Amino acid sequence: MAEKAPPVAIIMGSQSDWDCMRHTAETLDALGIAHHARIVSAHRTPDRLYRFAKGAKQAGYKVIIAGAGGAAHLPGMTAALTPLPVFGVPVESRVLKGVDSLHSIVQMPAGIPVGTLAIGKAGAVNAALLAAAVLALGDEALADRLDAWRARQTEAVADLPVDLA
Amino acid sequence: MAEKAPPVAIIMGSQSDWDCMRHTAETLDALGIAHHARIVSAHRTPDRLYRFAKGAKQAGYKVIIAGAGGAAHLPGMTAALTPLPVFGVPVESRVLKGVDSLHSIVQMPAGIPVGTLAIGKAGAVNAALLAAAVLALGDEALADRLDAWRARQTEAVADLPVDLA
Amino acid sequence: MAEKAPPVAIIMGSQSDWDCMRHTAETLDALGIAHHARIVSAHRTPDRLYRFAKGAKQAGYKVIIAGAGGAAHLPGMTAALTPLPVFGVPVESRVLKGVDSLHSIVQMPAGIPVGTLAIGKAGAVNAALLAAAVLALGDEALADRLDAWRARQTEAVADLPVDLA
Amino acid sequence: MAEKAPPVAIIMGSQSDWDCMRHTAETLDALGIAHHARIVSAHRTPDRLYRFAKGAKQAGYKVIIAGAGGAAHLPGMTAALTPLPVFGVPVESRVLKGVDSLHSIVQMPAGIPVGTLAIGKAGAVNAALLAAAVLALGDEALADRLDAWRARQTEAVADLPVDLA
Amino acid sequence: MAEKAPPVAIIMGSQSDWDCMRHTAETLDALGIAHHARIVSAHRTPDRLYRFAKGAKQAGYKVIIAGAGGAAHLPGMTAALTPLPVFGVPVESRVLKGVDSLHSIVQMPAGIPVGTLAIGKAGAVNAALLAAAVLALGDEALADRLDAWRARQTEAVADLPVDLA
Amino acid sequence: MAEKAPPVAIIMGSQSDWDCMRHTAETLDALGIAHHARIVSAHRTPDRLYRFAKGAKQAGYKVIIAGAGGAAHLPGMTAALTPLPVFGVPVESRVLKGVDSLHSIVQMPAGIPVGTLAIGKAGAVNAALLAAAVLALGDEALADRLDAWRARQTEAVADLPVDLA
Amino acid sequence: MAEKAPPVAIIMGSQSDWDCMRHTAETLDALGIAHHARIVSAHRTPDRLYRFAKGAKQAGYKVIIAGAGGAAHLPGMTAALTPLPVFGVPVESRVLKGVDSLHSIVQMPAGIPVGTLAIGKAGAVNAALLAAAVLALGDEALADRLDAWRARQTEAVADLPVDLA
Amino acid sequence: MAEKAPPVAIIMGSQSDWDCMRHTAETLDALGIAHHARIVSAHRTPDRLYRFAKGAKQAGYKVIIAGAGGAAHLPGMTAALTPLPVFGVPVESRVLKGVDSLHSIVQMPAGIPVGTLAIGKAGAVNAALLAAAVLALGDEALADRLDAWRARQTEAVADLPVDLA
Repeated sequence: MAEKAPPVAIIMGSQSDWDCMRHTAETLDALGIAHHARIVSAHRTPDRLYRFAKGAKQAGYKVIIAGAGGAAHLPGMTAALTPLPVFGVPVESRVLKGVDSLHSIVQMPAGIPVGTLAIGKAGAVNAALLAAAVLALGDEALADRLDAWRARQTEAVADLPVDLA
Repeated sequence: MAEKAPPVAIIMGSQSDWDCMRHTAETLDALGIAHHARIVSAHRTPDRLYRFAKGAKQAGYKVIIAGAGGAAHLPGMTAALTPLPVFGVPVESRVLKGVDSLHSIVQMPAGIPVGTLAIGKAGAVNAALLAAAVLALGDEALADRLDAWRARQTEAVADLPVDLA
Repeated sequence: MAEKAPPVAIIMGSQSDWDCMRHTAETLDALGIAHHARIVSAHRTPDRLYRFAKGAKQAGYKVIIAGAGGAAHLPGMTAALTPLPVFGVPVESRVLKGVDSLHSIVQMPAGIPVGTLAIGKAGAVNAALLAAAVLALGDEALADRLDAWRARQTEAVADLPVDLA
Repeated sequence: MAEKAPPVAIIMGSQSDWDCMRHTAETLDALGIAHHARIVSAHRTPDRLYRFAKGAKQAGYKVIIAGAGGAAHLPGMTAALTPLPVFGVPVESRVLKGVDSLHSIVQMPAGIPVGTLAIGKAGAVNAALLAAAVLALGDEALADRLDAWRARQTEAVADLPVDLA
Repeated sequence: MAEKAPPVAIIMGSQSDWDCMRHTAETLDALGIAHHARIVSAHRTPDRLYRFAKGAKQAGYKVIIAGAGGAAHLPGMTAALTPLPVFGVPVESRVLKGVDSLHSIVQMPAGIPVGTLAIGKAGAVNAALLAAAVLALGDEALADRLDAWRARQTEAVADLPVDLA
Repeated sequence: MAEKAPPVAIIMGSQSDWDCMRHTAETLDALGIAHHARIVSAHRTPDRLYRFAKGAKQAGYKVIIAGAGGAAHLPGMTAALTPLPVFGVPVESRVLKGVDSLHSIVQMPAGIPVGTLAIGKAGAVNAALLAAAVLALGDEALADRLDAWRARQTEAVADLPVDLA
Repeated sequence: MAEKAPPVAIIMGSQSDWDCMRHTAETLDALGIAHHARIVSAHRTPDRLYRFAKGAKQAGYKVIIAGAGGAAHLPGMTAALTPLPVFGVPVESRVLKGVDSLHSIVQMPAGIPVGTLAIGKAGAVNAALLAAAVLALGDEALADRLDAWRARQTEAVADLPVDLA
Repeated sequence: MAEKAPPVAIIMGSQSDWDCMRHTAETLDALGIAHHARIVSAHRTPDRLYRFAKGAKQAGYKVIIAGAGGAAHLPGMTAALTPLPVFGVPVESRVLKGVDSLHSIVQMPAGIPVGTLAIGKAGAVNAALLAAAVLALGDEALADRLDAWRARQTEAVADLPVDLA
């Protein structure tokens, strides 16, 4: 039911994308943000994509994170079907290393935006952080948790030995 | 009505793609193949895409030619929604010169094929010729017209002065 | 003063980026979203960048849109200095056509996200739309305006003659 | 003899391409489509290529699927020598990962089309599916088998656990 | 007749390639090397290509220079059909700027070599100079003319004002 | 304290860059040039970057060598914050192999220079050699050591067996 | 004579490179740094290159700036022949837009460094600024002029209207 | 002594290139063509390069085959220093997979040609075959051996099982 939807939906084109997209889920967990993760293939399950994306806002989602590789149509088609902000993660493809994924996600025509993150794991982590920054605009407690996460990240660098040679 | 559909549908993402895709229409005309041309944007009119592609076979179309640029999702999404053969034309994009269009069309995952032609005008012409080759498998008169077209093309080269220097 | 800051800040690396980034401003105007636009060069005015980005949240901004070209460090450095969501527009560069801008903006390491849009004008328009989608999460009136904008966009396609040939 | 030719011919430039192209054969098998597979090198056996391609229609083939890598001339030269539809599979090359294969196959000049699929295994599978879509235009039973294959593919996605997190 | 063939044949895929390939002809003229120039399209006139290349050595040619653009199959197919040295000039293509031409010409598989020159005019000039270097191995007078040409080239640089500032 | 700073500072964006940048340190050691190596992340520790780069000249450093990967902002931001010469090493990134790093470092806008070396280990070695060449302008003894190092390098090639076949 | 050599030598492969490299000369002029500019082609005048580079240090030059396009060998060969610091400017090439120039200059093997700047005019300006930074290490007056130049650059940005919308 | 030089010289930039270039030597052996193989680094041993290339014709060499990787200057500089035909083999580089090598070798300016072969092993084999084709112009016995080699190559394909499925 709609009232049960968590703020973030993670969708991906195939089971194999989970190796990448689980970093989104883990980062959301670390920030205390509830989320769903589903396999929705733009190409193999277009009906499911239409149902999911058309109903996402009504269901209560706030942000959708979509990961896909190759001729990656999932983020852009989702953005075409929902007014919610959609963030895209170009999954590293085997042959072209995600350059095709990146082109297919970031080069959207004027009118339908997808906020695109880096290829692969870094992008999956950052999609969660960007979703957190968006949700934190209306959630002070989350803003504090995000600040703390970022401060710990900065300190983690500071803790490293600064003179290596 | 369905029985009125010509064998070939040409679809494209925006009005500006017509500069490229009219070469498909003109080549089909030259071969005596009836066709429709429509603007169907995967991103701005996803419902129209869904209706068109889901009903294309029932409507009587045999082959669909889809042209799009940038993060070009039209050919692949059409192929996801119809069992008919779909040929894709990567329209030359302004910034990346169609490399993004090509990646978005040709790098489809296993399961949903798009037969991709060259970027731009050459691809638009060739999509018509490939559709003709497909339709000629069940249409002897068209096969003869296609053979004649190819013979004239060969002769046109032969008619050029062979020694330029 | 801080309470005067509009929800969106548009920053760009140089005067010449305005040709591209004015499309962000115009789209925000069309959606009724107040905004500032400033020139902040990561390379030529690093202190201004530091002050602006560090103070942006306190000043009252909600979303920052940063456009830059070439070795484009502005979006990423801004994201490093503020917890607000940052969206990056790769401005088309003269020599490498924005591929360098895209790489410099989208390939951020895990930990500091930039939601990246398409190269050039399409990206500038879409940055505004993505900011609108984010702000609409907490602003029902804006959500309605955004829905209306998208519906008009869809209808604009629908109004075109559907059979071109 | 000509009347014995199955509907699909699979040709490839070298023995090593079989690792990729066997996915075409297996997919055709799964769809119940008879086929031949032959090694025909445009560069090392040009006479064999001329004989094969010139005689392919007369022999009874309907569709030709050609896989090749690097400076991949096999699909285009075959298309130059037969009016049958030719689908090309860019085999992944060792050094340039199939980008050279893709360019050599897809960028055909106006006049001689090759319907090009994705680089590597995905393209090999999809060449078979595209051939099936073409042959299904004149073969209701095959159309039913293809529909069933696609339905099973969709269901296979549906059967996966939808909530991964 | 065979004894009439000049040492160098220049072939190209289409009339439009002459803009580039005339620089080969002009450079050969400057070096006093007789040559023919013909349009031979691998794709549109495969039979002419076959006849020309198979008979080139017998006709008396020593070196073949082939220029072509896009999915450029002419140099490689010529090399497959003759034991003569073949030099390839990647003609600048409109969309991909000759990168596709370069890949299609230079990335030949082991067994059939094409000595490839730079994309466009520089390559057309250099194909003539490389042919001259080859022919000069058996022609002392040509070797002297080539040395003189190179010396003049060096002097032409020397004649420029050396201090520009 | 400022007077203790060695002539060369090596900075890098993360611990993992040390695998590459240790070749800078080792080459400086071989040339007898004192140096510090520190982790300074433009993205995760921007305050540290500002402090370090703003104070580098005062601290007594002469040359700064900065290595970073992906959207590599460290060399360019450092160059924006110090008048000292900055040399950048594009660390090989996992997905795009350092092409993104190279673009992000070398394509600086007019006004803020970064002298960029090759991607990866070769660049790390050469950054040290370039720093040595710069420092040798004011240090005859170092100039002699550098000459000796280069002479040994030349001799090392000369010592190899010259006829391999 | 050697004692007359200014601190900076600008060399370039051909007259046409001057359009780009004059920005180096003008920037050096603005900073009050004396310089020579010469045409030295690695390919067409290899002996001149050899003499120039071998004698450059003895002649009194401190820094060499070399600009070249395409298969740009001038910066790297100069660096092979002199222990002085060499900075390379990839001149924008007509066909590949300087990507070939960049690869040929920046990807030097370990042992012979070239500090590479951006493609085209920005790189030409920055080569002068980097040379200034190097020379300023031993010239306090120049250091002051460089600081002033950078301050003016920062102020020039500050003087622009900060709110464009 | 000069009269002892075999017709082909193989040169390469470093010991590690031998893994690639030994395929040139082995192919020349198979064709009964005598050759030398030497390490000549344009960057680390420029004097040796000058001596070798300047004296190559006088020494009796007919064709020079040069292999190098990265910013590969060896083939082009050799061609600048000798009137003999020079064929270049882009050795696969670790990071950019030989794309940098290819650009540095093939994109020579008008005036100094290098006949460039494919990246890596295929190019190394083909450099030998192209040298053979050149030498065969003046050596009937070699022409016969080359014809026989090519015929065996064709037969080797013919001997493979033609129906794999």
